[in-house]
Amino acid sequence: MSDQDVIQAAIDDLVIANHILFSEGIVDAFGHVTMRHPTRPDRYLMARTLQPVFVTRADIVEHDIDSNPIPRDAPPTPWERFIHGEIYRVRPDVGAVVHSHAPAVLPFSVAGETRLRAICHTAGFLGDGAPIFEIRDFAGDSSNLLVQDNRLGAALAKTLGSSMAVLMRGHGFSVVGASLYEAVYNAINTDLNARVEMNALTLGRVSFLTPGEAAAVSQTHNTSLKRSWEVWAKRAAGELR
Amino acid sequence: MSDQDVIQAAIDDLVIANHILFSEGIVDAFGHVTMRHPTRPDRYLMARTLQPVFVTRADIVEHDIDSNPIPRDAPPTPWERFIHGEIYRVRPDVGAVVHSHAPAVLPFSVAGETRLRAICHTAGFLGDGAPIFEIRDFAGDSSNLLVQDNRLGAALAKTLGSSMAVLMRGHGFSVVGASLYEAVYNAINTDLNARVEMNALTLGRVSFLTPGEAAAVSQTHNTSLKRSWEVWAKRAAGELR
Amino acid sequence: MSDQDVIQAAIDDLVIANHILFSEGIVDAFGHVTMRHPTRPDRYLMARTLQPVFVTRADIVEHDIDSNPIPRDAPPTPWERFIHGEIYRVRPDVGAVVHSHAPAVLPFSVAGETRLRAICHTAGFLGDGAPIFEIRDFAGDSSNLLVQDNRLGAALAKTLGSSMAVLMRGHGFSVVGASLYEAVYNAINTDLNARVEMNALTLGRVSFLTPGEAAAVSQTHNTSLKRSWEVWAKRAAGELR
Amino acid sequence: MSDQDVIQAAIDDLVIANHILFSEGIVDAFGHVTMRHPTRPDRYLMARTLQPVFVTRADIVEHDIDSNPIPRDAPPTPWERFIHGEIYRVRPDVGAVVHSHAPAVLPFSVAGETRLRAICHTAGFLGDGAPIFEIRDFAGDSSNLLVQDNRLGAALAKTLGSSMAVLMRGHGFSVVGASLYEAVYNAINTDLNARVEMNALTLGRVSFLTPGEAAAVSQTHNTSLKRSWEVWAKRAAGELR
Repeated sequence: MSDQDVIQAAIDDLVIANHILFSEGIVDAFGHVTMRHPTRPDRYLMARTLQPVFVTRADIVEHDIDSNPIPRDAPPTPWERFIHGEIYRVRPDVGAVVHSHAPAVLPFSVAGETRLRAICHTAGFLGDGAPIFEIRDFAGDSSNLLVQDNRLGAALAKTLGSSMAVLMRGHGFSVVGASLYEAVYNAINTDLNARVEMNALTLGRVSFLTPGEAAAVSQTHNTSLKRSWEVWAKRAAGELR
Repeated sequence: MSDQDVIQAAIDDLVIANHILFSEGIVDAFGHVTMRHPTRPDRYLMARTLQPVFVTRADIVEHDIDSNPIPRDAPPTPWERFIHGEIYRVRPDVGAVVHSHAPAVLPFSVAGETRLRAICHTAGFLGDGAPIFEIRDFAGDSSNLLVQDNRLGAALAKTLGSSMAVLMRGHGFSVVGASLYEAVYNAINTDLNARVEMNALTLGRVSFLTPGEAAAVSQTHNTSLKRSWEVWAKRAAGELR
Repeated sequence: MSDQDVIQAAIDDLVIANHILFSEGIVDAFGHVTMRHPTRPDRYLMARTLQPVFVTRADIVEHDIDSNPIPRDAPPTPWERFIHGEIYRVRPDVGAVVHSHAPAVLPFSVAGETRLRAICHTAGFLGDGAPIFEIRDFAGDSSNLLVQDNRLGAALAKTLGSSMAVLMRGHGFSVVGASLYEAVYNAINTDLNARVEMNALTLGRVSFLTPGEAAAVSQTHNTSLKRSWEVWAKRAAGELR
Repeated sequence: MSDQDVIQAAIDDLVIANHILFSEGIVDAFGHVTMRHPTRPDRYLMARTLQPVFVTRADIVEHDIDSNPIPRDAPPTPWERFIHGEIYRVRPDVGAVVHSHAPAVLPFSVAGETRLRAICHTAGFLGDGAPIFEIRDFAGDSSNLLVQDNRLGAALAKTLGSSMAVLMRGHGFSVVGASLYEAVYNAINTDLNARVEMNALTLGRVSFLTPGEAAAVSQTHNTSLKRSWEVWAKRAAGELR
């Protein structure tokens, strides 16, 4: 494929990712998914400010690593694009980022004593627990909770560290993947793990994945990411019941 | 726009609000949404007694501030219209009111020790907790729980005070907004906050929004209310999966 | 209307009731709804052994008060029809009966220390708590839990007493109404009350309806049963989103 | 019917079972259902590696009791087919097996102090509790949790013993039936029982089925398995609302 074909294929997938995340309840009118530019790793692709379910190819905008849209007179892009740019800056292993307010994950963002940890084999990427980003430590105690500049984005990326997911207190979470398929998979399975863990904790003492198991299941699942993607894409397109 | 155009546009939106609230599970065969008349602030618009999902333009009836339909021989309007009229009377900042029996909110109306408080950034309007209207204090201990006269409506409005939402014990809740878009947004996010808070409380000690955060997130969200509205309206119209 | 017209209208409603209860999740492949014969109060109408969602007019069979089908060579009717017949025998105020295995109600049938009580204004008919039918007391500790003869039906009806709903341990519940509309309404709101009460109890001390409130809200709601029915019927017919 | 007709009918049912399990939320892009070959009991039928919702007749592959596909150059079949083969080897009473990751069951797989037991009359097959397969005991503490060889399959089958369901820690469960209809019924009702038991345990002390009741209700339900199947098949085909 030519570079142009590669870029077009990436954009097509990014449009589908927007629709999948809406259809699976990970984003609603808000929330976003981005991917690193396939031929220019210092850039990333993100839909302009628009509800994910309405995104088309024409809505995808390039951004530089400082989260400036290219060209500068592009239509407005999300206030919180800095989440994405600052993660791409410090995590060369990351190829895509999802930011979500999914209701099942939110409880773990505000109940700091109970970590969101890998409890089932589809969520090994959570390891021994997602870190929590407490924005009060960086923006004071009267902020609007949004990560809307490079400084806050960098603080979030630092809290993420080498993890694959970071909870954002009272706000949501951000999750990454080596590829767009992996980030979407991880987003949907963060939500699943949260629901399972919440219910399991009501039943008594719980057995989480060991670090070795968490690593092993992630490796296994990452070999078949397209399998879930195909089902989700069909459902988002209204072709499944 | 002429006054008549403004009124027609308001009515169109009110019809859509009825359909959205049904489609999002906030009302079923019962429950209602009203808006202050756009050119006569001493009046409000409300559908006649009819299931919200069936409401059309022709079903919208003007009411005066005492909750009398105009004209007086209009078709019957809801028994509980006094909720709306008495709030409009004492809250000039309020442009729309939703009254709902949503099942996720009801538990907080009967469990007075646990306040429904702003826990996530889409529900800052709940502040440090919605007050609870205990109708026994006003109608005795054998009432049908309905707010069906001006006196009870005034008592409810007084309990609401300067809050944006009031829980009604064993019955439901009422929520307000500066605009129709804001009231619908607040209704749907009251339900969301209830589900998140209920789950979070099972996980241990919880961090709620500070007063400053609650105010800041509300201010931010109120700048993009149409973004959610457009998604909900499409879904109510059957155009989304 | 002629008697024949009255009977045909009753059968039409009974078919719709079957579809509503399936569509609202109260019955699945099992469960049933019956109504007292509109002109012969010592008989009742019930679909032959068939999944409720598939029931048509031709499937409705008359039964005498002993739960014999009329004519005797009618197609097979449900094993548990005795639930219905024995309730009609001792409760002249009852015009219709629903028997359901709805999953949200089942927990209250097995957790005898926590009564299913009227907690919200749409379920006043539950009063201060639905009695529990423990079939072990009548059929021993190795039964198949089914109420499949007149003796067990009579025992169930006795446990029901003057209540409107009876829980059946590990099995489901049966609920009655003066009319078919009321029984369907009560079935759906038994399920709703169970979900609300289950969640409310996790929040701390709870305020239930007083006996006076329970009576008053029932009286009020029974004046507008058709309002819910019309929405449910449209949804069952696939005409609502 | 000729043997060939019997086999074709079995394959048709197996295709429908795949679609039902997807439509009822028991499998998603992963999970599988198999049946013993109807004329060669030392073989079983299983779809090639493919999302269950996409399975057609052409995708069904024969396997010998060692879980080798026949012919050997058949398209790839699931890594975890050994779950099925090893159960068929030691359980001549088993005619079909479902393997699932259903989220409502997972909590019971990790909370070993709380057994998943028969609590309602549609899940008598769970008896006094499904055993839990702890793969750490057989594959060490850094495995990918998958049962992907004959040795692990045999260990799982041994943990299953004479039960009808076995939970797999952090992974899911496997459930069997004398027939395909029974295995599908048992899979869906394992999920239902888990949801009911989880909620019931929050209400206080709980009454489970006695061993005699569990046996009796299973015997009763196994006489009308097609009744549920027909509803599920219609829903999977998009013919029900």
